[in-house]
Amino acid sequence: MKLYGGNAMAGKHKVDTIILHGSYMTMNYDRQMIADGALAIADGAIVAIGRADQLLQHYEAAEYHDVAGSVVMPGLINGHTHAGMTFLRGVADDLPFRQWLEQIWNLERQLLDDDFVYWSTLLGCCEMLSGGITTFVDSYYYVDAAARAARDLSMRAIIGQTIVDGSVLTAVERWAHAEDLAYATNYIERWHDNQLITPAISPHALYSCSPEKLRQCADLAVRYDLPILLHLAETHRESELILQRYGQRPIPLLAELGLLNKRLIAAHCVHVNVAEIKVLAAAHVNVIHNPSSNLKLGAGIAPLCDMLRADLSLGLGTDSAASNNTLNLWGEMKAAALLQKGLHGSDAIDAYTVVELATIRAAHAIGKEKLIGSLEVGKRADIIVVAQDQLHQLPIYDIPSQLVYASYPADVTMVMIDGRVVMKGGRLMTLRDEGMLREKTELYRERIRQVSIS
Amino acid sequence: MKLYGGNAMAGKHKVDTIILHGSYMTMNYDRQMIADGALAIADGAIVAIGRADQLLQHYEAAEYHDVAGSVVMPGLINGHTHAGMTFLRGVADDLPFRQWLEQIWNLERQLLDDDFVYWSTLLGCCEMLSGGITTFVDSYYYVDAAARAARDLSMRAIIGQTIVDGSVLTAVERWAHAEDLAYATNYIERWHDNQLITPAISPHALYSCSPEKLRQCADLAVRYDLPILLHLAETHRESELILQRYGQRPIPLLAELGLLNKRLIAAHCVHVNVAEIKVLAAAHVNVIHNPSSNLKLGAGIAPLCDMLRADLSLGLGTDSAASNNTLNLWGEMKAAALLQKGLHGSDAIDAYTVVELATIRAAHAIGKEKLIGSLEVGKRADIIVVAQDQLHQLPIYDIPSQLVYASYPADVTMVMIDGRVVMKGGRLMTLRDEGMLREKTELYRERIRQVSIS
Repeated sequence: MKLYGGNAMAGKHKVDTIILHGSYMTMNYDRQMIADGALAIADGAIVAIGRADQLLQHYEAAEYHDVAGSVVMPGLINGHTHAGMTFLRGVADDLPFRQWLEQIWNLERQLLDDDFVYWSTLLGCCEMLSGGITTFVDSYYYVDAAARAARDLSMRAIIGQTIVDGSVLTAVERWAHAEDLAYATNYIERWHDNQLITPAISPHALYSCSPEKLRQCADLAVRYDLPILLHLAETHRESELILQRYGQRPIPLLAELGLLNKRLIAAHCVHVNVAEIKVLAAAHVNVIHNPSSNLKLGAGIAPLCDMLRADLSLGLGTDSAASNNTLNLWGEMKAAALLQKGLHGSDAIDAYTVVELATIRAAHAIGKEKLIGSLEVGKRADIIVVAQDQLHQLPIYDIPSQLVYASYPADVTMVMIDGRVVMKGGRLMTLRDEGMLREKTELYRERIRQVSIS
Repeated sequence: MKLYGGNAMAGKHKVDTIILHGSYMTMNYDRQMIADGALAIADGAIVAIGRADQLLQHYEAAEYHDVAGSVVMPGLINGHTHAGMTFLRGVADDLPFRQWLEQIWNLERQLLDDDFVYWSTLLGCCEMLSGGITTFVDSYYYVDAAARAARDLSMRAIIGQTIVDGSVLTAVERWAHAEDLAYATNYIERWHDNQLITPAISPHALYSCSPEKLRQCADLAVRYDLPILLHLAETHRESELILQRYGQRPIPLLAELGLLNKRLIAAHCVHVNVAEIKVLAAAHVNVIHNPSSNLKLGAGIAPLCDMLRADLSLGLGTDSAASNNTLNLWGEMKAAALLQKGLHGSDAIDAYTVVELATIRAAHAIGKEKLIGSLEVGKRADIIVVAQDQLHQLPIYDIPSQLVYASYPADVTMVMIDGRVVMKGGRLMTLRDEGMLREKTELYRERIRQVSIS
């Protein structure tokens, strides 16, 4: 990798933006870090990165951001969420899983529409942006509205319409909009060429889609060259149900259906054994680990160390605000590390690997490694600046440790996506009307309360 | 309980401070909450609490704090920490447990003195205060310095000198200062009458103290009427070692030594079975659960649900910055809840109970229930105000859920201890010289790095 993009010319290259000073965690495969670095950005891309003194000899910019005393790193990637559920944050907490699910379904069926999903997604995006998430992978309903919300904030996202199948669902689970492949196709065609939004198709899960519906989704994915977003092996009950219904466990069933390939971004995989992990790895399937949500819903703890050992393509996710209840990838990094240590010992996993799960490994897992996930020349400028001087972080011996074990969303001081500063000092630059967002949040909160009570 | 302390008199009672508006989580045993409440404080104590409109008819104050849109609740209690280790935050991360321990011991032996412990404790106290912790239970060395640091910030604390015993330690573990019961006695006599600091004695653990030393500590505790702070059943290895050395497991051994009583505040108890939990409960022993530290050091997950079922006296702790790496009780609340849900299902524990573990139950567990832990007339005014209007918290359906699952230390906007405002809007009012604290932190960071490398 060519770390430094400049040529030793007499005149200086003119770029749009230079970020200078601070410590740079490139997250490239050499695990390169640059003390007192700098980074030049032109047309939304990283055109140079290196030592500040050297870079400044060759580049000049219209805009400078001096971030001395901070860490500069690639934006975090939230590999699995449903931002449209943010209005449901904590609405059915501490209930048995089945009751939680039925209450959520009931609310969704009665309340969801384009307006709900737009504002609920916008609220979730604001939280993600504030905490340094620059890209998220989302499945929900009325995804056209979700895509508009992400676009309006200038966030990068893969967003897939969730598809379920009435033929394998009970009456309470059935919901016409979610069976609508025509809506999905329409959405995909409308967003296919967007710079920041990548449409996807999201069959909900093996237990909520028939094999026929799954094949239809797979066909659509091939036709439009899309990622497939699927909940997979989340609960023990899911494995039992699939075994009962089809005579085999989820991974072999998926293989038989022809869905085990690098197009697949599978969330959870809590209940997979070592042999199944090897099958997933060999098929280049991508798995998103959601440690907090898996605990909160009682699903268990995914075998992350086994997955790392099998060199499975991996990312981290928050899941939705209805099952976490924050969209905080710093929290997921700490949870992912601590859970494996609790199970396998204090040296089971190291902080650097965990940061990779939220950046470069995640970029690979969601098929965007050429665009994002590291600070490298030629990649899009999705960059965050993280304070290193807060009392709760001091003293600092090792930057990855500090990031994973002692940092919070509020420590993120600047967020840039595709070369554009979208957050600085806590202010969301692309949020046009916070007052309206708060009004809508309160309005829907009241409606949700009424439906919950009735 | 008399919730409202005012008399229906013609003239108004004059008090020092009134906190008004906001939602009040009293954390009393009736689980009473007051919407649009108010609270009157005189001479550092709560003299009235009730609805704002009613309270204002009877009380007038020199100082008013309008906290509309916030939650008002008792200050959080950190039941187990070593604030003096804050300078060691993350210094030996991701190592095998034994290596971690030896590196920490080596650093402590070479570097600890009065000055180190004072400033390191001060740094830890600043983090705790900012995040809403008003009381902490601490064991470390040079505790006179730790007590001075807490006092200088006007924090409430129980602080015990750690005692180990050379006769049962290897050469690398031995350290003269820590065997010094004379230092401990001296310290106890000096601090015995302090308003905010309660001295204690802290035999380190069963494996690092001989029965003889433990009995000496117990005698000292009886003589001065002190709490005993002990690490207990933290690792599987500890149980094995004790079984090997004494022919019985830790809990029966402690019973035989006469230490199982309500004076004992035992940290961890990860490796205890249901029968042992019943023994602890029957003996009125108090147990502090430290979920993040137990995971990070590979100890495991304590059986919190079994402990709750046995009605054991319980609190929550962060442990030290060397094994967590934050002193963040919001994080411990979320971790405690999520871990039990992950093991036993999504309804295994509810958010309200978890808030109790950080407030009223913790107050009972550390023997200070008459003074703190709830907002009740007659108790000392240890009170925190938590924002409820941050985008990452919205919408709010249930306050305990929001606090446990969706709040961060930075959401705490005001902290009062013993009636005195010690933090407001992020500013630490009792920290006299932040510049000096940062200088000392950097100075010791350099020394620690040098010793680590050598």
